[in-house]
Amino acid sequence: MADHGTADRRLRLGIAGLGRGFMAMRATLSRHPRVVLAGAADPREEARRRFAADCGAPAHATVEELCADPTLDAVYVATPHQFHAAHVALAAAAGKHILVEKPMALTLEEAGAMIAAADAAGVHLIVGHTHGFDAPILRARDLIAGGEYGAVRMITAMDYTDFLYRPRRPEELATERGGGVMFNQAPHQVDVVRLLGGGLVRSVRAVTGAWDQARPTEGAYSALLTFENGAVATLTYSGYAHFDSDEFCGWVGESGQPKDPERYGQARRLLGRVAGPDDEAAFKSTRIYGGADEPPGAFPDDPPFHQHFGVVVVSCDRADLRPTPRGVLVYGDADRHLDPLPPPTVPRAEVLDELCAAVLDGRPPVHGGAWGLATLEVCLAMLRSAREGREVTLSRQVAVPGNAPIFSRGRPDGVPGMAASPELGSR
Amino acid sequence: MADHGTADRRLRLGIAGLGRGFMAMRATLSRHPRVVLAGAADPREEARRRFAADCGAPAHATVEELCADPTLDAVYVATPHQFHAAHVALAAAAGKHILVEKPMALTLEEAGAMIAAADAAGVHLIVGHTHGFDAPILRARDLIAGGEYGAVRMITAMDYTDFLYRPRRPEELATERGGGVMFNQAPHQVDVVRLLGGGLVRSVRAVTGAWDQARPTEGAYSALLTFENGAVATLTYSGYAHFDSDEFCGWVGESGQPKDPERYGQARRLLGRVAGPDDEAAFKSTRIYGGADEPPGAFPDDPPFHQHFGVVVVSCDRADLRPTPRGVLVYGDADRHLDPLPPPTVPRAEVLDELCAAVLDGRPPVHGGAWGLATLEVCLAMLRSAREGREVTLSRQVAVPGNAPIFSRGRPDGVPGMAASPELGSR
Ligand SMILES: NC(=O)c1ccc[n+]([C@@H]2O[C@H](COP(=O)([O-])OP(=O)(O)OC[C@H]3O[C@@H](n4cnc5c(N)ncnc54)[C@H](O)[C@@H]3O)[C@@H](O)[C@H]2O)c1
Ligand SMILES: NC(=O)c1ccc[n+]([C@@H]2O[C@H](COP(=O)([O-])OP(=O)(O)OC[C@H]3O[C@@H](n4cnc5c(N)ncnc54)[C@H](O)[C@@H]3O)[C@@H](O)[C@H]2O)c1
Repeated sequence: MADHGTADRRLRLGIAGLGRGFMAMRATLSRHPRVVLAGAADPREEARRRFAADCGAPAHATVEELCADPTLDAVYVATPHQFHAAHVALAAAAGKHILVEKPMALTLEEAGAMIAAADAAGVHLIVGHTHGFDAPILRARDLIAGGEYGAVRMITAMDYTDFLYRPRRPEELATERGGGVMFNQAPHQVDVVRLLGGGLVRSVRAVTGAWDQARPTEGAYSALLTFENGAVATLTYSGYAHFDSDEFCGWVGESGQPKDPERYGQARRLLGRVAGPDDEAAFKSTRIYGGADEPPGAFPDDPPFHQHFGVVVVSCDRADLRPTPRGVLVYGDADRHLDPLPPPTVPRAEVLDELCAAVLDGRPPVHGGAWGLATLEVCLAMLRSAREGREVTLSRQVAVPGNAPIFSRGRPDGVPGMAASPELGSR
Repeated sequence: MADHGTADRRLRLGIAGLGRGFMAMRATLSRHPRVVLAGAADPREEARRRFAADCGAPAHATVEELCADPTLDAVYVATPHQFHAAHVALAAAAGKHILVEKPMALTLEEAGAMIAAADAAGVHLIVGHTHGFDAPILRARDLIAGGEYGAVRMITAMDYTDFLYRPRRPEELATERGGGVMFNQAPHQVDVVRLLGGGLVRSVRAVTGAWDQARPTEGAYSALLTFENGAVATLTYSGYAHFDSDEFCGWVGESGQPKDPERYGQARRLLGRVAGPDDEAAFKSTRIYGGADEPPGAFPDDPPFHQHFGVVVVSCDRADLRPTPRGVLVYGDADRHLDPLPPPTVPRAEVLDELCAAVLDGRPPVHGGAWGLATLEVCLAMLRSAREGREVTLSRQVAVPGNAPIFSRGRPDGVPGMAASPELGSR
């Protein structure tokens, strides 16, 4: 590990996998004040060439080579799911702190091995990005922890997107290889709901849906979760590109960008142009980082609003809280108000905030390995509940650590992940 | 039973119970072209006086006397829940057709006895009003039955209201006497969801919430229902007067009236003026039909929009359908459109349409006794599931009868429950 002074120490981060996960984080990675983008690994030569040009940092063909770089503090594992376990093991063995993309892994065994590897190496392991890091979710959780509104009783989460009709590699449409919404979208919603509900899910009853034979993996689910503390949550997700719940989010899209409702049906229309699975994979690869047709605005660099994962309503004893792209709506006994959040300066800064706070400031992460494993356990339980037609009881859950504020009051000074605003925390 | 010619035969209807149930139906009852409001029964003298003056029809002190009137064809039982069984038995014994308010009864035994009594007397028994009669729900069901959009796969229903903070009689806050949202609100949402899902619920997992010790009955629930046909539904309800889901319904209220979002917190404010349970019951009684302070616009006579029960999204293979106060939003593969409904001419006309169609035209009702019992079975199963912390399997469910259109194409000509419009059924 590199040796830095503590004053304005910055985290030297290497990227494993220059795909869409990386693209969604690119603006943050290059602009976060506490991070230096210091290397990458990807088997695709065009991606390496592009990275070297964009970032002026070395790009390797393998994760092994990346991890061998002694100047790196940490590695962001954003390779396809099936490689997460192996790449985390490599990074841990090299003494690097680790940020690994969701889903943490495909099985609890893999996730357990990843935690053990990080523990053995004495490095931090954080699982993200998920939308459980979104500033409005963290802020809602802090409002809950503050106690003013009483206990969390009931959570409703719903998200309707076009997920299943975005261009895919074949494995992304095969559940047993980590495809479909249970591995790719449920981790977001479950992370959100677990954070707000305290973390300790007791039981899961779910029904999953795979309604389109041409894309034979789960595209939808409904689930009811009970928590140890008595709270209940219902989660609904559909990626079938019909109703779009951004209609209930002021037409702000998942990435915090304004969305044009008139572009209805676009995902299916674009996909209609591809001739089959190979063509679709090729189409996807041209749109990836370094690809010929990489859409410039695929992920907005400066979204005016916060990211979100659909509608979330948290019912507490004395208020309902509704995280939105502009802040947290608080519906109290006597009145309602927006607990506003200043616009983000870079999207997804919260993930790097947490990584830097852990590595540089010694602040234990919220979304650590045990947390990520617990979220995976819920997702796998949803699949099992649906398959077996019964409620599934959980055993690997962990609580949100402590009652200390995670977001606004807990952010280290001088980490401007968001535009400064006199409104912050105001009523 | 009165003997009428068939040409323009009208149904002579007597009302048992002149409370808020009746008030919600009053405009319809007095203006429906196939109904004559021909009598009433209520122990409250002021209500009888008011009814005689309003309607020019006899008002009796007891349901027995009402049922003894040989000129009546049918009785609308809108007395408090605990009397439904006895009053249905009286009406059936007198050979009257019956419309009974939701909840049909407090137990399945009572509901079974009511069905048996109606069968023995050879009279129709219809359970309503519920929001399962709302024109947009019936229209959505017809769109489903039409087959164009494929099978129903997943339903999401959520409703957030101020139900628990409306003025109540003490029994309305005691679950074992039929109080709380499980007996008073769940029947609406379950009726809606059963109609759209085909009717045959297989299992129920639910958690109920009684969060306010000052009003110690259920004010909220979350439930996951599976159907025999493989569909799943999640139902969420909160009556705790915080978030108001009319925000997602274009600020149209449950009765189809425009709603002023600035009146936030009004239910709790009004209730804050009463001193205790007796005072609250007295306050409620002054606001009832014939009472001193009966609010003139408690139920709008001419709502510009259709009634609703919150957000409902029905996901089918090839479209999501969303019943709204203006019609059914159809989110298809390629585009979306509103399947518009002309505004109602009288609210809740659909209930009387179904009653008249059954009695006058011999058209079997959708919301008959067996249907109502099945809805009650789901509501009771939700209570049991919550109490016992497990999934409950059902055994008394019935399917939506046939695939014939219920609403638009099935309405007998010349029953203008809605304003004529060239748009009806158009795309
Ligand atoms: N949190 C989010 O919002 C989000 C968004 C997108 C992706 N992701 C996650 O990121 C991960 C990657 O998904 P994606 O959509 O970016 O896939 P992708 O196919 O777009 O990109 C994967 C990248 O990894 C590279 N790669 C493949 N094998 C590799 C190896 N052995 N070593 C190094 N690089 C390798 C590929 O060449 C490609 O550049 C997944 O786990 C996914 O769930 C998360
Ligand atoms: N579908 C709906 O939207 C809706 C709305 C309101 C009420 N309801 C239903 O209507 C029924 C009545 O509830 P409510 O809110 O009108 O109650 P309420 O207290 O407002 O009215 C009940 C009425 O019945 C009268 N009554 C009491 N005992 C009687 C008896 N033995 N014989 C005749 N009349 C008697 C009372 O004097 C009163 O006028 C309930 O089952 C309720 O669920 C349905």
